[in-house]
Amino acid sequence: MSDNQTQTTSDYGGKIVALAGGVGGAKLALGLYRYLQTKNRAKELAVVVNTGDDMEYLGLKISPDLDTVMYTLSGLANPTTGWGIQGDTAQALQMLGNYGHNNWFWLGDKDIGTHLYRSQGLREGKTLTQVTEEMRRALGIECELLPMCNEPVQTIVETEEAGKLAFQEYFVKRRAADTVKSLTFEGVEQAEITDEVCHALTDPALVVICPSNPYLSIRPILAVPQVRQLISSVSCPIVVVSPIVGGNALKGPAASNMRSLGGETEASALGVARIYAGFAQRFILDTVDAEQKGAIEELAYKVLVTNTIMKDDESKTRLAQEILEGCGLA
Amino acid sequence: MSDNQTQTTSDYGGKIVALAGGVGGAKLALGLYRYLQTKNRAKELAVVVNTGDDMEYLGLKISPDLDTVMYTLSGLANPTTGWGIQGDTAQALQMLGNYGHNNWFWLGDKDIGTHLYRSQGLREGKTLTQVTEEMRRALGIECELLPMCNEPVQTIVETEEAGKLAFQEYFVKRRAADTVKSLTFEGVEQAEITDEVCHALTDPALVVICPSNPYLSIRPILAVPQVRQLISSVSCPIVVVSPIVGGNALKGPAASNMRSLGGETEASALGVARIYAGFAQRFILDTVDAEQKGAIEELAYKVLVTNTIMKDDESKTRLAQEILEGCGLA
Repeated sequence: MSDNQTQTTSDYGGKIVALAGGVGGAKLALGLYRYLQTKNRAKELAVVVNTGDDMEYLGLKISPDLDTVMYTLSGLANPTTGWGIQGDTAQALQMLGNYGHNNWFWLGDKDIGTHLYRSQGLREGKTLTQVTEEMRRALGIECELLPMCNEPVQTIVETEEAGKLAFQEYFVKRRAADTVKSLTFEGVEQAEITDEVCHALTDPALVVICPSNPYLSIRPILAVPQVRQLISSVSCPIVVVSPIVGGNALKGPAASNMRSLGGETEASALGVARIYAGFAQRFILDTVDAEQKGAIEELAYKVLVTNTIMKDDESKTRLAQEILEGCGLA
Repeated sequence: MSDNQTQTTSDYGGKIVALAGGVGGAKLALGLYRYLQTKNRAKELAVVVNTGDDMEYLGLKISPDLDTVMYTLSGLANPTTGWGIQGDTAQALQMLGNYGHNNWFWLGDKDIGTHLYRSQGLREGKTLTQVTEEMRRALGIECELLPMCNEPVQTIVETEEAGKLAFQEYFVKRRAADTVKSLTFEGVEQAEITDEVCHALTDPALVVICPSNPYLSIRPILAVPQVRQLISSVSCPIVVVSPIVGGNALKGPAASNMRSLGGETEASALGVARIYAGFAQRFILDTVDAEQKGAIEELAYKVLVTNTIMKDDESKTRLAQEILEGCGLA
């Protein structure tokens, strides 16, 4: 606890910073948000979101991970898919199809409202952080929702089967079926940390690496030079929640990525622990993987074994509470 | 009938060219289209549409009159409003409203599909004529649908109450309630006739000025320098269908425009006849205005008195048939 706790928004002297990609990350972000809301502490949370998946499509500036986290935190998310908006329709998409357009990327009608608003804001010279701030406030989200940077960064996936692909081409158009050989985050070297991310990561109370894909969702965030530098120098704990449970990714291609990118023979929580070894100090391990506890502890982690499957709001909030309790922040 | 009739698409040696704005023009265009379809002659029709109302809104390239005619001819139009698509929703608009956007311009979700497709085509370097051609073919429209030009032209409405307004600001945002002092068609001097409009207007069989607002819908078309020149030199009849019936505009601000722009004390079919006097040779007068027949004939028109109210498909087709019969083209 810092001495200046009364001058910050947090009773604990700093922000609880969650690093998140899309659906998996959004679930834990929601758990943290809901738990902190019950304590009237929602403002302590800052979710820093990957924007390497962003793309321009039909002239619309689309930020899939920001949208997923925003819809999730505002209660708008489609509970079946985890992304998109509940009850959304696809009339625009149907019309585009009538004109012969190849609709490889889903655009819900409400979703398009989000994309139009964001695109217009950026066109008017606002930063992505500013437009996101406007939107999250309008949707009643009480915590901070921060893009990893304002500059466009594009995750380029080099695959065995199809060469270099823009992220959404790999992920959506080709259904993440290709073997990934390497990743580049185009533009990230020129990206600067935003004032808002810098502020959140200055003496934070906790950094949580959400159960998002370590390669495709978390690595781009950490690839923003000053972001990695700042996180590396925090004095608070950095907690990893494994996105691999029972040898499988909860969602998406993380397991296959671990084999082709991580050089692991099998996807495992231990493999995830290896990725963040020396960087993070705490690891949240699912009970089904409890036998890996010893090996992960050997990587200098303090390990909490618990049920990490977030199937409903209650389990999300409970997991968040356990994480915060483990760090004396509940 | 020309000698080269077998070499053209028309049995009559040339196109039936309809000049149209939005809802009123679209109705007669549909009548002509449906009538010619029954004769397997739909390809003889070319509808040349006002694009002075076009605007960019939220980054979308919107062509309201082209859309109205296209939706009407393809059977997609909302029969209640005359514009927009039947059964369209407004989910994107609702979401934009959630973010605090001032939704002064209606955007149906299906409509947005149209705008996204058009915007993307223009961004790829296609002309408005080319994108429109793709869309009308995709929607199964068998006649030509031609923007008046490819260059952006913007109708600027100078009003007594609010000074200079972009067209949609005058028409939609302020509900056409201001008194119009003058019009300018920004960009029209630089606009060139398109190959397609030029072809349609080369030895046409008939030119029909649809019951659209003479100032706001037809004048911009005729303001394209070569279009006016070419129409002025046709040897076929030019027929005017009055948009003023019983002293009122069938739709929109035409009656008020006739007073403030046309210097008429009252809106009337005769006033419409004055606008096109010396330019057009035939006039379609509604039976309720039959007493104006003599005065209109004095302006050197051949006048056909008939019921011009197009309340359903049958009345549209019947009016079209009467117009064509009057010119020996039925």
